[in-house]
Amino acid sequence: METLNGLKRTHYCGNVGIEDIGKEVVLMGWVQKSRNLGGLVFTDLRDIEGICQIVFDKDISKEAFEKAEKLGSEYVIAVKGIVHERQSKNPNMKTGDIEVFASELRILNKSETPPIYIKDDDDVSENLRLKYRYLDLRKPSMQKNLILRHKVANIVRNYLSENRFLEIETPFLTKPTPEGARDYLVPSRVNPGKFYALPQSPQIFKQLFMVSGFDRYFQIVKCFRDEDLRADRQPEFTQIDCEMSFVDMEDVISIMEKMMQRIFKEAINVDINLPIPRISYKEAMEKYGSDKPDLRFGFELINVSDIVKGCGFKVFSDATSNGKSVRCINVKGYEKEFTRKNISSLEEFVKTYGAKGLAWIKINQEGVVSPIAKFLDEDTLKQILDRVDGKEGDLILFVADKDEIVFDSLGHLRVEVAKRLNLLKKDEYKLVWVVDFPLFEYDEEEKRYVAKHHPFTSPKDEDLEKLETNPQDVRAKAYDLVLNGFELGGGSIRIYNSDVQMRMFKALGFNEEQINEKFGFLIEAFKYGTPPHGGIAFGFDRIVMLLAGEENIRQVIAFPKTQNASCPMTNAPSDADEKQLQELNIKTL
Amino acid sequence: METLNGLKRTHYCGNVGIEDIGKEVVLMGWVQKSRNLGGLVFTDLRDIEGICQIVFDKDISKEAFEKAEKLGSEYVIAVKGIVHERQSKNPNMKTGDIEVFASELRILNKSETPPIYIKDDDDVSENLRLKYRYLDLRKPSMQKNLILRHKVANIVRNYLSENRFLEIETPFLTKPTPEGARDYLVPSRVNPGKFYALPQSPQIFKQLFMVSGFDRYFQIVKCFRDEDLRADRQPEFTQIDCEMSFVDMEDVISIMEKMMQRIFKEAINVDINLPIPRISYKEAMEKYGSDKPDLRFGFELINVSDIVKGCGFKVFSDATSNGKSVRCINVKGYEKEFTRKNISSLEEFVKTYGAKGLAWIKINQEGVVSPIAKFLDEDTLKQILDRVDGKEGDLILFVADKDEIVFDSLGHLRVEVAKRLNLLKKDEYKLVWVVDFPLFEYDEEEKRYVAKHHPFTSPKDEDLEKLETNPQDVRAKAYDLVLNGFELGGGSIRIYNSDVQMRMFKALGFNEEQINEKFGFLIEAFKYGTPPHGGIAFGFDRIVMLLAGEENIRQVIAFPKTQNASCPMTNAPSDADEKQLQELNIKTL
Repeated sequence: METLNGLKRTHYCGNVGIEDIGKEVVLMGWVQKSRNLGGLVFTDLRDIEGICQIVFDKDISKEAFEKAEKLGSEYVIAVKGIVHERQSKNPNMKTGDIEVFASELRILNKSETPPIYIKDDDDVSENLRLKYRYLDLRKPSMQKNLILRHKVANIVRNYLSENRFLEIETPFLTKPTPEGARDYLVPSRVNPGKFYALPQSPQIFKQLFMVSGFDRYFQIVKCFRDEDLRADRQPEFTQIDCEMSFVDMEDVISIMEKMMQRIFKEAINVDINLPIPRISYKEAMEKYGSDKPDLRFGFELINVSDIVKGCGFKVFSDATSNGKSVRCINVKGYEKEFTRKNISSLEEFVKTYGAKGLAWIKINQEGVVSPIAKFLDEDTLKQILDRVDGKEGDLILFVADKDEIVFDSLGHLRVEVAKRLNLLKKDEYKLVWVVDFPLFEYDEEEKRYVAKHHPFTSPKDEDLEKLETNPQDVRAKAYDLVLNGFELGGGSIRIYNSDVQMRMFKALGFNEEQINEKFGFLIEAFKYGTPPHGGIAFGFDRIVMLLAGEENIRQVIAFPKTQNASCPMTNAPSDADEKQLQELNIKTL
Repeated sequence: METLNGLKRTHYCGNVGIEDIGKEVVLMGWVQKSRNLGGLVFTDLRDIEGICQIVFDKDISKEAFEKAEKLGSEYVIAVKGIVHERQSKNPNMKTGDIEVFASELRILNKSETPPIYIKDDDDVSENLRLKYRYLDLRKPSMQKNLILRHKVANIVRNYLSENRFLEIETPFLTKPTPEGARDYLVPSRVNPGKFYALPQSPQIFKQLFMVSGFDRYFQIVKCFRDEDLRADRQPEFTQIDCEMSFVDMEDVISIMEKMMQRIFKEAINVDINLPIPRISYKEAMEKYGSDKPDLRFGFELINVSDIVKGCGFKVFSDATSNGKSVRCINVKGYEKEFTRKNISSLEEFVKTYGAKGLAWIKINQEGVVSPIAKFLDEDTLKQILDRVDGKEGDLILFVADKDEIVFDSLGHLRVEVAKRLNLLKKDEYKLVWVVDFPLFEYDEEEKRYVAKHHPFTSPKDEDLEKLETNPQDVRAKAYDLVLNGFELGGGSIRIYNSDVQMRMFKALGFNEEQINEKFGFLIEAFKYGTPPHGGIAFGFDRIVMLLAGEENIRQVIAFPKTQNASCPMTNAPSDADEKQLQELNIKTL
């Protein structure tokens, strides 16, 4: 193996072009492939900018040619040579107009045969990809994703800095998050028996910055939740965390949607029109069955409870008499795409969300075709079709149940149907603010109200007096930004008055002692001049994932964890040293 | 309490100026002070930009005036009014040319009397300051420090991004750091009995990015070490972490010193001349007794062992015959500043570094004055004075001991003397690269060699063959950047050959099994085409501390920990829930 020994790279492989013809260049990178054709060795040399073709000709350098004959895949080499115009240009290659005739070759490192291919369509298991992540990250798509991630972080930091936001770091070794998800704990050696928690968000600290007068804060910061994982969740994730003083909801929304506009423009050259539309929580649930509505397509939910009340179809009439509801979606114009078998599989699909069945009506050339038609009198059927604008070619799908289940199952069903119809375009970006959230939701397990967002969210002024009497009716000064069915972020105007904050904690079922234990220093801080303030936090991984057109956040994270929160490359988590556990005053069970 | 109710701030308090005279402005902030003088209420209103004087006149608004009479310190208010030129201008105030006559006042929040004063010279204990950190952070000096911190981070990110470095995030929940300091551990719930470690640095990950072809990586990132704390150490600290491929030491030094130059220029308008001077580890030790030399003043160490060998002063002659050394510093020209009592206290000082005593020679009007002069013959004395350039007015201070102790005690002594003489100017910035470090140091406790930097540091090519035979003589391709006696950062060219890496691990005393257990995936990664690479990591907190002219990193961290790694504000670390410990499969002892 040879060394650089002072040799300097002059160009990136991917950047050598027609303007460099005649120049001597020094390139360094990895051998993508290399083959001897008619007495010349042709080597595709790869670096982060792309690939350049190198030609080794024994008439130029016998030594280089002989070394080149032995090159293997992923060898690391340095090449010196002259840029020539190619005889046969390759229009599919950024550097397809040129090739470099090498006068010198240094083999900087060899490579064994890699256990995974360095190409995007390698089709190996994700576990193997993660085990050899350092090779997986050589793939163009992964490099593109992480470059995009860097770019988006820069756009965000520039925008917020220009707008006077200060990035201030908050502690990682801190207190457990009350009313949050499950914390990761860190045993303290110096304080035996005590634990730090890793932050689920810098929520309390950023509010304290407002108390301190820091006015406009932000941070792109790692946060931690010890929850079971899904495709778009990781034990550690990155947030764009913001907070502002002396603002109301309009101020926060306005500055943040401008940031979003800039991200889309600068990162992927997509224009977002402002203002971003808004929808109330209630309307989102009624129309889309979800507070994260995907607005790229229709199939909105329609309530037919009033029509089917007392009708002949027992499932419908029973539901409406039990305070449940009957709602449907009209898969307009796609009747032909759904055979009975397809519809059965949709029924299986809604059952996973708790629905007991899926009633349906098709309208085709023969008229109404439906297993439930015979139970419905003509007038009821007509009223239904009128309401859903039922025309030839339509497929109407019904669920009857508690609102919660109807919303959940039809909400997912409309997305599933759109997916099957190929209506989910990756390059269509439908942003929407969801507003007017309820402040609380009832937790059946804990038998108490819990905060829908978090306990620092301000109630709407006009709902303040219902805090004790009708908590379920109190709306919050909260707002979520949703893109194509994904929540990009959420925020709120915060409570800044210690009395209201106490009332909020009490509404959550805490007594004075618990409040002091969990939130004492915050209540105390609020006594010394707290400005009105509010903010928002965005899921950075998720934003980058959507901008990259990926479906899994692991595709935009360099070293993610698997579903069981482990890393196949490092084997973390791993056994701990007995001695160290003793120092930490803990033992494993 | 009143609400904003749509009222918008038009200006920051500190930014209203002569150009705004006649305008109506809306300001929001905290009441610094407020007093009734001759029928007018004068209120100093403070926000992050500064202070503005508000005048409440009952002839303008009786309602505002009456509310203003009741304002207390740190009340949060909004004021609307017209900017007037002041009768008696205050040149000590940024906004001293103007005052705002208020037509409207809203009290947004009240404040109880704060437990600490909101001014820089409050003189309360640091513990109280940290307990009420949200108030402490209202002080102008703390706001200035955190604004500077934000600015420095932006300068670094801009510079590195312009130079094609990508910021890529590395995991926080990862593997223990072999050969590092003590790790913080995080028990895994999903993998019972297993632990993550918080990273001490992203060292291995950044090297894997180089294996992946990411060429130029950086990250401003939190790192963690569970060590006992000192003034400039915290359990969590922030690093500027960089790594580059296809480079040698000159490339890394060159790009990084340009970054440093830019930081000094843009953050505090100080010019740093490039190239930054270099000194070898050996010379730094010989001249300054330290590998973190403070070059703002002289008093360099001088070896007189050869002169005093066999002399009449037993302490000196014994030392030299036992392979120890006798060295001194000449406190040139400051003889008069040091009485015998002062010198005694210097002797006490060096004893804390293990020296047994401090011999001294003064040269004043009467000639040589010294308790040891009588033991030295004239020629020896003359030779000493010649070597140290001893002239009237000088004070020469000697330590005789093992090199290690002599360097440590005289190294600290020269700084202590300079401090007492007020020679440590905060606005003088002497940067120096320390190079040619030894690769290993011998660990007396573990009875083996350990890496002076870390086990991935490359030996110098010409010393490679001594790895097994003379480890103590192997020099490293390592470099530290030192400013005024503080290490700002350190880095190295890394080993990139798996065979050399194996030899290095073996030199550290590991057997194959241990190597595989601790570093297996790295050795494996190195087999698939690893480029030559190197990098550096800077202590971000420390850089900001020095730029801010502070002496304690807690002054540039929003929510630092105390010496016992706790937070007086949140009371972290705290007791954990029994139920959660069970879920984590651990118990406390």
